[in-house]
Amino acid sequence: MNPFSWPARVYWEDTDGGGIVYYANYLRFLERARTEWLRSLGHSQQALAADPGIVFTVVSLTVDYRRPARLDDELTITCEPQLEGAATIRFAQRIYRHADAPPQGGRPLLEASVRVACVDARSFRPKRLPAFLSSAHAAGSRPIIEEPSVHA
Amino acid sequence: MNPFSWPARVYWEDTDGGGIVYYANYLRFLERARTEWLRSLGHSQQALAADPGIVFTVVSLTVDYRRPARLDDELTITCEPQLEGAATIRFAQRIYRHADAPPQGGRPLLEASVRVACVDARSFRPKRLPAFLSSAHAAGSRPIIEEPSVHA
Amino acid sequence: MNPFSWPARVYWEDTDGGGIVYYANYLRFLERARTEWLRSLGHSQQALAADPGIVFTVVSLTVDYRRPARLDDELTITCEPQLEGAATIRFAQRIYRHADAPPQGGRPLLEASVRVACVDARSFRPKRLPAFLSSAHAAGSRPIIEEPSVHA
Amino acid sequence: MNPFSWPARVYWEDTDGGGIVYYANYLRFLERARTEWLRSLGHSQQALAADPGIVFTVVSLTVDYRRPARLDDELTITCEPQLEGAATIRFAQRIYRHADAPPQGGRPLLEASVRVACVDARSFRPKRLPAFLSSAHAAGSRPIIEEPSVHA
Repeated sequence: MNPFSWPARVYWEDTDGGGIVYYANYLRFLERARTEWLRSLGHSQQALAADPGIVFTVVSLTVDYRRPARLDDELTITCEPQLEGAATIRFAQRIYRHADAPPQGGRPLLEASVRVACVDARSFRPKRLPAFLSSAHAAGSRPIIEEPSVHA
Repeated sequence: MNPFSWPARVYWEDTDGGGIVYYANYLRFLERARTEWLRSLGHSQQALAADPGIVFTVVSLTVDYRRPARLDDELTITCEPQLEGAATIRFAQRIYRHADAPPQGGRPLLEASVRVACVDARSFRPKRLPAFLSSAHAAGSRPIIEEPSVHA
Repeated sequence: MNPFSWPARVYWEDTDGGGIVYYANYLRFLERARTEWLRSLGHSQQALAADPGIVFTVVSLTVDYRRPARLDDELTITCEPQLEGAATIRFAQRIYRHADAPPQGGRPLLEASVRVACVDARSFRPKRLPAFLSSAHAAGSRPIIEEPSVHA
Repeated sequence: MNPFSWPARVYWEDTDGGGIVYYANYLRFLERARTEWLRSLGHSQQALAADPGIVFTVVSLTVDYRRPARLDDELTITCEPQLEGAATIRFAQRIYRHADAPPQGGRPLLEASVRVACVDARSFRPKRLPAFLSSAHAAGSRPIIEEPSVHA
């Protein structure tokens, strides 16, 4: 099964004086794909902040930059969520040139791992992931790490 | 005839601490629409920089901010180019919430006028617009200001 | 009297693939100078949002881009506020290479005019400017347009 | 000995709709500090790209986000370079609220490790670090990992 993926085009706003995408701006592409993955499950972050009152916050990340993206490139960003506890999701993410993306089997430009915590929208304290996220993972996203606590 | 238009989604990267799109970031949406209008004519800026060696540079702009865009909003950005001389295009641009965009007849969130000059990719001196832009304007874009010089 | 001015350095984050500052990013420099001008009067926007419950929002702007700024450039951004009514300030702003800035008398890279409205932090309805802004203008900023209403 | 540090102020441009600094934008602060550390050694990246024809490119990074920065916060960004081979530097970096920064001993908002490669400005192939960087490290920056190859 192919991972969830989302397209993006590289515009001038994304590049820097080196003629390639500025290293921080890849994180914007990664976040768009995570947001759209959530939307593909039927949920917007605006709505979740109102009810049940949760927001998601990045707690850590690693990025390996392999090859640069350039102006006008068509990119594909993938997003593979894995439960890491009752309140945390780890997203394995990759950015490809569109022509190389799954199922083509080409090599990614960038690989990242992004840990996101679910927190209370007001207190910012950790809060259990909503059920639709636990089950979404369980069903379709092949969690690599079994996390019994979230099913307890 | 409806103007050229291009969609955009508002992500976290676009918003600021006021909960709305940061005032500078609307200019990124405007630039995407101009780039895609050019692409719709069959030309990428990378290719034009190589042959015939031209780039486009913004020389002035005006923006009227009417109502804010917010996280998750689906926007439609329009782009109506008008020749303003042998080397300059003025783009009348608007940003709408998608549901209000032409032909719906709703009011825009933002109106802008952006003057762009065609310059030599190396010397940055003004350079005559390529023929495909003059004719594209003449044919489909209903120039408001007649500019005999560009047809001379 | 020299206008209020604030320094900025051009970093990679500010540039685009053309090797110059991306056109939208000059607006970030302009906003920093307006924020620091306000701070020079003893007020932060965080504090004003809490008491008396006001925020500032850009309602329109014009920008003339004269010459580009480049990586590592030291810039000086000036900020000359002018009252334009009971709830609006217009900022005449310029960006210079540091060596050209007032009182040196060099030419600016960019000139802008930015109209900012004072609005209620909750309702976003126009709200009278706080007294310290009216008097600050009156005292030090040489308003070009007399606005009797704000002194009423 | 305190590490090299550089100040930054949080402006609207840095925040997102959650009222805190957008997660990608901390990477801009980190890059400013690395650029200024290099400048403190007497070198600008513009000059190094011309002679000896080298540029620096981020090859990987890890970031731990501990507590958020907010509008108007005064930050201190630290930068501790460590040689990791003939062509690579690893920067241990931290972002503090100014009042907590060394030598105050407070806890950082964010910790990062950023690996940067020195590459040829044209071919983008790895290139030996210039001597001033090797010696700068050797002298003042307490390399954790001894890398005999760079002194060969």
